[in-house]
Amino acid sequence: MADTRILLDHGSGGRATHELVEGLFLKHLEGAPLERLDDSGVFELLGGRLAITTDCYTVQPVFFPGGDIGSLAVHGTVNDLAMVGARPLAITCGFIIEEGFTRADLERITASLGRAAKEAGVFIAAGDTKVVGRGQADGLFITTSGVGLVPDGLDISGQNAKPGDAVILSGTVGDHGVAVLAAREGFFFGEDLKSDSASLNGLVEAIVRAAKGSVHTLRDPTRGGLATTICEIAGASNVGINLFEAAIPVAREVSSACELLGLDPLYVANEGKLIAVVAPEAADRTLSAMKAHPLGRDAVIIGEVHAEEPGEVVLETAIGGKRALAMLEGEQLPRIC
Amino acid sequence: MADTRILLDHGSGGRATHELVEGLFLKHLEGAPLERLDDSGVFELLGGRLAITTDCYTVQPVFFPGGDIGSLAVHGTVNDLAMVGARPLAITCGFIIEEGFTRADLERITASLGRAAKEAGVFIAAGDTKVVGRGQADGLFITTSGVGLVPDGLDISGQNAKPGDAVILSGTVGDHGVAVLAAREGFFFGEDLKSDSASLNGLVEAIVRAAKGSVHTLRDPTRGGLATTICEIAGASNVGINLFEAAIPVAREVSSACELLGLDPLYVANEGKLIAVVAPEAADRTLSAMKAHPLGRDAVIIGEVHAEEPGEVVLETAIGGKRALAMLEGEQLPRIC
Repeated sequence: MADTRILLDHGSGGRATHELVEGLFLKHLEGAPLERLDDSGVFELLGGRLAITTDCYTVQPVFFPGGDIGSLAVHGTVNDLAMVGARPLAITCGFIIEEGFTRADLERITASLGRAAKEAGVFIAAGDTKVVGRGQADGLFITTSGVGLVPDGLDISGQNAKPGDAVILSGTVGDHGVAVLAAREGFFFGEDLKSDSASLNGLVEAIVRAAKGSVHTLRDPTRGGLATTICEIAGASNVGINLFEAAIPVAREVSSACELLGLDPLYVANEGKLIAVVAPEAADRTLSAMKAHPLGRDAVIIGEVHAEEPGEVVLETAIGGKRALAMLEGEQLPRIC
Repeated sequence: MADTRILLDHGSGGRATHELVEGLFLKHLEGAPLERLDDSGVFELLGGRLAITTDCYTVQPVFFPGGDIGSLAVHGTVNDLAMVGARPLAITCGFIIEEGFTRADLERITASLGRAAKEAGVFIAAGDTKVVGRGQADGLFITTSGVGLVPDGLDISGQNAKPGDAVILSGTVGDHGVAVLAAREGFFFGEDLKSDSASLNGLVEAIVRAAKGSVHTLRDPTRGGLATTICEIAGASNVGINLFEAAIPVAREVSSACELLGLDPLYVANEGKLIAVVAPEAADRTLSAMKAHPLGRDAVIIGEVHAEEPGEVVLETAIGGKRALAMLEGEQLPRIC
């Protein structure tokens, strides 16, 4: 790979992103929590375990059905903390603003960010603002970081999936990516199409209450979609994973839009869904707890972990075939989050 | 103020930034640590005190004499933690990259960031990368956040300056801003002109060892320069501050460059200097401890705090006059950090 310039691919969340993270960033940046490549880094502090995470948001347009860059910046960071089992506590936010951005839009986005933080039960601990000249950024970028505490007895990581585990998905896939794309391009696929952007810390608390130490892995399938995230888990845990295509819920509008646009909903970003990999004996009670939560009503078992072909993901298709799934190649939908 | 668009001013660190922070951000974002407007937010956690901070770096050009955007992103965040007396522990970094940025430059910058983190004794706990299309950003923006622990017995804040306190500056002012401007515009003011960008946590440890609870305020005068930072302290602590112009060190190259360019070095950004406001009985031993540290060799007492005219800053000029100092108005040097 003699690529000498950074391409949109490198931000896709798929194969090229992994290559950049492993081939460049990890080579120069030291930190054991970072190297685990979980959604948050976790380290010991004052006798407890602190989780920490960061995410840059460059979504375009900044307003879309179901949310905006402000609420998204909170949801995404709260979710990254929740995916290691942490209780989110505080976030920071950094705004990079293009000169000429309207003050009214900035205020609407900031208010939305503040509301989302309040709803998720986190406070804002620090902030920063930079303004760059016209044409030097595209409207507004927000970077949020978050800290949270991991309760004792939990060890939730992408590295912890085990043969026999059940793979549970909390609801429909593809909503966020398709809603943002539709807003960007001015397509209309029906009133019901909107982003699923939401804070999942409440749902994670319900899962942990039900399954406790039987929760091995939690992941929110954002950039790269469900398929890429499942591939990451299979790789990090060195296990095989079978997915049942017929079980994976896709909303009607998302399904039609994907067909029309030539997208595979399994590779489209979500911002309010999670995958829980749990020990088989805890699968039923975890599923029930998820279904009882407003953000997990459509939860369903979509696959199982096994010991054969470590690192491989196979989709058992609706018509009875089998198809190997790989990480996202290329970038279909830049600036989706 | 019926300004309806965000202007470069709003990112200057001066008056317009303060108006935006107080008139918009604080209105919608809740968090007691944030509202103190110190360089880091501080809150109780697990029986200790955690400091947290974030900063966006948009410096242009990304390489400049004395540093680059990678080392700067570490120094700035480490310094914001040190300015509340915290021992920096971990940082996160988010990269927003313009498509087409060279991989070689990204690697050089990442290596520099990693080295700066190692030198400052912090590890990288989490990271994120987004890529936006050509023309949607200007090269590379980095947002770092940091966490640190505040040792027991310290309460260092911009709100804590008291009448009688001495104001100590750790060295020359204006170096960073003038070095970046020279690099950007292709001016040459001599081999010696370079950014002072450095991690100040070691110097802060020396100050705290010498003065302990007598350290009332620490601040690094970045955007807006020494004058704006002193105005912020006077306002936040509700005290008057007199500065002695003749005592404030300015390097010869910086002084000539400022004269030529029509800049006032008191308003130009620094990235490796700090202001310590300490109780009068601790002033001499603090100054000695600073002078014994490589980053405080040129430390000097530049002013005193008094009870008259709270919120006002007066410069006693070299020729014996008096001049009221205000926060930076407008933006002379955008994208300096």
